[in-house]
Amino acid sequence: MKVVLDPVHGYIELDNLAQDLLSTPQMQRLRRVKQLGFSNLVYPGANHTRFEHSLGAMHLASVLTRSLDSIEEDRKIEVKAATLLHDVGHGPLSHVTENIIDKYTRRRHDDVKEILGKGEIKEVLSKHGISPGNLVKHIKGETSVGQILSSEIDVDRMDYLVRDAHYTGVAFGVVDYNRLINQMDFYEDRLVVNYGGLKAAESLLVSRFWMNTSVYYHHVTRISEAMCSKAVEYMIENKELDPLRLRQMDDIDLIAAMRNATGYAGELSRLLDARKLYKRALYVGLADTGKSVLRHRDRIRRVEKEIADMAGVEDEYVLVDIPKMPEMLEMRAMIKTDHKLIPLNEASHFVSILQEAHMDNWRMGVYSPKEHCEAVGKAARDYFDIKKSLKQFKLSDL
Amino acid sequence: MKVVLDPVHGYIELDNLAQDLLSTPQMQRLRRVKQLGFSNLVYPGANHTRFEHSLGAMHLASVLTRSLDSIEEDRKIEVKAATLLHDVGHGPLSHVTENIIDKYTRRRHDDVKEILGKGEIKEVLSKHGISPGNLVKHIKGETSVGQILSSEIDVDRMDYLVRDAHYTGVAFGVVDYNRLINQMDFYEDRLVVNYGGLKAAESLLVSRFWMNTSVYYHHVTRISEAMCSKAVEYMIENKELDPLRLRQMDDIDLIAAMRNATGYAGELSRLLDARKLYKRALYVGLADTGKSVLRHRDRIRRVEKEIADMAGVEDEYVLVDIPKMPEMLEMRAMIKTDHKLIPLNEASHFVSILQEAHMDNWRMGVYSPKEHCEAVGKAARDYFDIKKSLKQFKLSDL
Amino acid sequence: MKVVLDPVHGYIELDNLAQDLLSTPQMQRLRRVKQLGFSNLVYPGANHTRFEHSLGAMHLASVLTRSLDSIEEDRKIEVKAATLLHDVGHGPLSHVTENIIDKYTRRRHDDVKEILGKGEIKEVLSKHGISPGNLVKHIKGETSVGQILSSEIDVDRMDYLVRDAHYTGVAFGVVDYNRLINQMDFYEDRLVVNYGGLKAAESLLVSRFWMNTSVYYHHVTRISEAMCSKAVEYMIENKELDPLRLRQMDDIDLIAAMRNATGYAGELSRLLDARKLYKRALYVGLADTGKSVLRHRDRIRRVEKEIADMAGVEDEYVLVDIPKMPEMLEMRAMIKTDHKLIPLNEASHFVSILQEAHMDNWRMGVYSPKEHCEAVGKAARDYFDIKKSLKQFKLSDL
Amino acid sequence: MKVVLDPVHGYIELDNLAQDLLSTPQMQRLRRVKQLGFSNLVYPGANHTRFEHSLGAMHLASVLTRSLDSIEEDRKIEVKAATLLHDVGHGPLSHVTENIIDKYTRRRHDDVKEILGKGEIKEVLSKHGISPGNLVKHIKGETSVGQILSSEIDVDRMDYLVRDAHYTGVAFGVVDYNRLINQMDFYEDRLVVNYGGLKAAESLLVSRFWMNTSVYYHHVTRISEAMCSKAVEYMIENKELDPLRLRQMDDIDLIAAMRNATGYAGELSRLLDARKLYKRALYVGLADTGKSVLRHRDRIRRVEKEIADMAGVEDEYVLVDIPKMPEMLEMRAMIKTDHKLIPLNEASHFVSILQEAHMDNWRMGVYSPKEHCEAVGKAARDYFDIKKSLKQFKLSDL
Repeated sequence: MKVVLDPVHGYIELDNLAQDLLSTPQMQRLRRVKQLGFSNLVYPGANHTRFEHSLGAMHLASVLTRSLDSIEEDRKIEVKAATLLHDVGHGPLSHVTENIIDKYTRRRHDDVKEILGKGEIKEVLSKHGISPGNLVKHIKGETSVGQILSSEIDVDRMDYLVRDAHYTGVAFGVVDYNRLINQMDFYEDRLVVNYGGLKAAESLLVSRFWMNTSVYYHHVTRISEAMCSKAVEYMIENKELDPLRLRQMDDIDLIAAMRNATGYAGELSRLLDARKLYKRALYVGLADTGKSVLRHRDRIRRVEKEIADMAGVEDEYVLVDIPKMPEMLEMRAMIKTDHKLIPLNEASHFVSILQEAHMDNWRMGVYSPKEHCEAVGKAARDYFDIKKSLKQFKLSDL
Repeated sequence: MKVVLDPVHGYIELDNLAQDLLSTPQMQRLRRVKQLGFSNLVYPGANHTRFEHSLGAMHLASVLTRSLDSIEEDRKIEVKAATLLHDVGHGPLSHVTENIIDKYTRRRHDDVKEILGKGEIKEVLSKHGISPGNLVKHIKGETSVGQILSSEIDVDRMDYLVRDAHYTGVAFGVVDYNRLINQMDFYEDRLVVNYGGLKAAESLLVSRFWMNTSVYYHHVTRISEAMCSKAVEYMIENKELDPLRLRQMDDIDLIAAMRNATGYAGELSRLLDARKLYKRALYVGLADTGKSVLRHRDRIRRVEKEIADMAGVEDEYVLVDIPKMPEMLEMRAMIKTDHKLIPLNEASHFVSILQEAHMDNWRMGVYSPKEHCEAVGKAARDYFDIKKSLKQFKLSDL
Repeated sequence: MKVVLDPVHGYIELDNLAQDLLSTPQMQRLRRVKQLGFSNLVYPGANHTRFEHSLGAMHLASVLTRSLDSIEEDRKIEVKAATLLHDVGHGPLSHVTENIIDKYTRRRHDDVKEILGKGEIKEVLSKHGISPGNLVKHIKGETSVGQILSSEIDVDRMDYLVRDAHYTGVAFGVVDYNRLINQMDFYEDRLVVNYGGLKAAESLLVSRFWMNTSVYYHHVTRISEAMCSKAVEYMIENKELDPLRLRQMDDIDLIAAMRNATGYAGELSRLLDARKLYKRALYVGLADTGKSVLRHRDRIRRVEKEIADMAGVEDEYVLVDIPKMPEMLEMRAMIKTDHKLIPLNEASHFVSILQEAHMDNWRMGVYSPKEHCEAVGKAARDYFDIKKSLKQFKLSDL
Repeated sequence: MKVVLDPVHGYIELDNLAQDLLSTPQMQRLRRVKQLGFSNLVYPGANHTRFEHSLGAMHLASVLTRSLDSIEEDRKIEVKAATLLHDVGHGPLSHVTENIIDKYTRRRHDDVKEILGKGEIKEVLSKHGISPGNLVKHIKGETSVGQILSSEIDVDRMDYLVRDAHYTGVAFGVVDYNRLINQMDFYEDRLVVNYGGLKAAESLLVSRFWMNTSVYYHHVTRISEAMCSKAVEYMIENKELDPLRLRQMDDIDLIAAMRNATGYAGELSRLLDARKLYKRALYVGLADTGKSVLRHRDRIRRVEKEIADMAGVEDEYVLVDIPKMPEMLEMRAMIKTDHKLIPLNEASHFVSILQEAHMDNWRMGVYSPKEHCEAVGKAARDYFDIKKSLKQFKLSDL
């Protein structure tokens, strides 16, 4: 039994299986994949990696399974291994490349069948008598015990909310996870939170809400990620980057490739390195756009071109960013009372209103170099038929 | 310049005036007045005192006034002194005795005219050329600069929210007070928060909401305080305690007096020492009672007698506890934008919904020794005409 | 299983036995016994109690025993109960009254045979089938498992070092206790630290050193405690206080009694309440006094009288305070390597030099009201034949 | 005035000058230069960068200069700018490349004359009327005010000790820097610590000692850095890397170049990526080697070759690592008493013994792939004429 020191959880114990898995190049790669992509352009401390998050999540899985008597020992070992491996399918810069990898390879970050089924990881699992197939299902949350690492209220999100708060310095990322874990149990094959953990579950939702508005949806991060995504797509379209290879890269590989890229991708890379970012030509909420704007999500590149034409600028100078409707999956976690299971947002009035407030944080953005912002902004307003912003105040502008 | 070490704010600087004021017996008494009365029966760490809170609030006033260029130097000195003295009028166990002292002496804890106008404090103020009358007004929030220590978003509540969280161990008492103070300013004689401090102001509201439900409204604390209040009233009615003297006591004086008291007051004292508390015979929210229940607030002792009669138990075994409607005064803090001032609950959708959720936390309680709970509960239900509890879940029951 | 929230360790689990023990008046009394006596006169946050320390130490005992496979289940239950009860014999204000109670009743704070063998505690232990006699031995550290709570490196000191640092705000009270506990084990009936825990053990020593100089030996605390001790002795000698009863008092009882005391004891009580403390007439280290000064430790009252006579002041105005040679018991903890056991101060060069530095912190003091300091200081110098202070700098003067 | 959130110091204010300097590509590069090189292979959280350290040090310089009335306003502005820029001359991976850059370019990381005297930084300084030449001198500590950022007890080391502790999770990196800064002042052109800050200065030394043994001298870090250094030297010797260009690279540039390198350098790169590190063939302290071993420091590559020949392995498989004698520069900080200045290690007995203990941590190492460790270890022992290790225990082995 070895230990490793984690700034968030303190000493984390590593058994032989964990040590062997951590020694594979696939897991070592995660040392060089930033957890939060470009968030360090806003929060300079946010340089933490998928590697430490994987350790932290495994630690929480270990604490949680220890108190779940109904799970057999073999399943506990699998769940811990699955948690350690759950992010091994992330591409460079984590979520920045996720949609592109999905678009070109049809693999989400939790599609890890290929990765677990070959090479060093396969060997380690085989040595310890563990079925890669079971782990794949756990990681996708397709099994009962898989809910521990992939469900509405899993150890994955407990760790990343607390960890992201620690490294950004955002005070409210505090989750009362010790209490929460203490109050979790299986009930008829469902991972639930006892009523005594209701307040701890609420604390998770407060964290989620706060981290969304302060960090995950911060407009500077969104702009940087839109710039990087577009550069990567250019490289793929220009055959300068193989999407299957992309998924196996670390941040160093990707950024080095962007620096070497020709044309527009190389230019974007230099802008990102120098933090000379595009600005918001348009940044408006649902009250301004209506829900119909979401229909454009499948044809972003087309929309960008049309707005660029209207504004009389080159296509490259328009980035359109239409996120999905915000959801806080955690709201559907099940709370167990003496009699029955109740979804968190019904058990807690407080959570139900957080949900409502959360819709308020959605923004669509159109970004452009500063010198084109006025023209592009005007064109985008016309294109989306937006009169003028209805709201004076925008939380995400802070 | 001396310094004193505070677990919450670190080193706090004490100038000569602060040192002199702290040396008076009136301020030294606050070392022996618990900040949170009986909350330590729920949170064992909550033994902190009005003395350290006074130091902490003065520290924040000092940080805030330093950056307010529009205030003249003499006013800054007054504000810091007023903040240090603002709780000198608290009776033993803080809020536990507040209503009783008010009832029998017509003095609220911020009526400090008598205290500042005589004895050692008067001498110190005179030595430093400070007018007691000005301080009295600042403490009541009747002056412009007085808003710093007594208004919707003052240093008093910033300190106690953070401090109470530190000593109870409740994670969510985090207030981003450095940011908040950094964004506060005077605007046309009004202490306001710049728009850039909106999120920090929201963090104050989250803390307030969380501390209310977890700590300030905890039913065990409410029961203990109801027991203590009733004992103190008995002692006053029996001429065993002089209400004017009560206000000058510290916790030791009061508890020693209760232990020496005859009859029912002495009995309650022994129950409190042994933490053998009354239980909830009834504990219901507004949905069950309707707002009309509030009319009983002025005749509690009468109601207790009537319920006791209906239940066939002695008067002493019924405690009725009907709090005021909950309010979060902080919601009316003013946010300043380029154009105008807007109340916090209009500037922030999030805060407006917190307000709504907060009403949900109101409970009225009827408490009784365990063996009488069933009879008293039934009588109380009849008395208040409450069918059966409408809600399955009660946040404050946790 | 209930939980209670502790600011230091987070949620602490309470099984039925712990709940029952905590419900006894003997344990409830500890809620009103300050852990650090008068240290709050220096560190305003230091109002924590023996009650929370007992909870914290039990928590650590629970974590430690969980990983010790060699101990049978019944012993683990006993050790946890013994740890919860280990301070039940402390008199009011903890160490302040310890020597006096010992002098007049021949009972140290860990002589708990009487307390466990009668009343509510006896009933609870009997109900749970636990022998009071075994617990008494564990608490004195006379059994093998008793080392967990009473030995060179026990959970008692782990908890109080960390807890006292938390409440005073002293940064260096950090002990890496998770690592330390993780590396502790029994080896041939001896509780030892594996070599892998050497650095964690060193961290305990750094804490100990730092807390000694910053908190435990602070001269303001020592003066206050000397004043209180003398007042209590006066009361005992004047038959105003029964030493057997003293041991069962809480802080409130004692301070209320002092306030009611006649003569000099009452006067000292008023000085302590107003924090009008005696000053240092003499405060010198071993280099100045030589070790021979220790022979006076058994005749302090006599020495005080003689110095008072020489100075021409009343006996009451001279307090002599000669502590034992400082020791850091933790240095004799055993470190286990592959081959053998080695005492900590031999295994670690760093610890061996801390020991040397620690001797440097010893001071003897003679205290007196400010107006008599010069005369008393001169007399004390003559009495102890001290030329002039050899050292310019005194760590404990800071 | 903008603010940026730092996990260590909270909100840091950025004036216009700081904003402009931060916008230069030279400062943005520091976002991609890890503060602690390969320490993240031991402490997974240690991914922080020179960028945030520069912000933090500037913040402390700002706090310190605010209270130094004797410094004129222009000098304060210079000192803050110099502190922000003080690490702009660091090569990739910070100290890992420092000696190599020095060897091939004769530029230490604080030789920043070229960097400040051209390009964007020059423009910004010119715009704000600041002389690059003055900043260069401040950064080298050659001016009086330069002591603030470069002396025995400067804001540089205050920030990095605390920051490195925060990101590694090492508990004892706590420095009481608020107290320390509060007690610093100029005295006859010398930056000194008032006697009242002695304990805070001691806390800095404890941190230094602890961080040295736990982090800075950790053998895994030393091995990784030795491997990387050798790879970089190979690349320079093979004309695959230009040493002048090296200094301007970020971590991404360097690691991408190593991955593309031919031969042995490329091989070392792959070992580092996979964390397949060389092991210690020899690791011994001064007691074993004597001081004469230091004479080999100038001919390391020669020694490696000779040992390799003796062991019959290729040159590449022997890495020799002989550090300088350890020193804790902080010990020579000046403490000011009423009468005079005294070096810290004379004012504090505790510090003087820390110094002694610190020598004990020096180790020389010979590293080799695991399979050659026995042969290389034997050869190295013969080469350096080391009988067998004298000490059973080695702190740095933990």
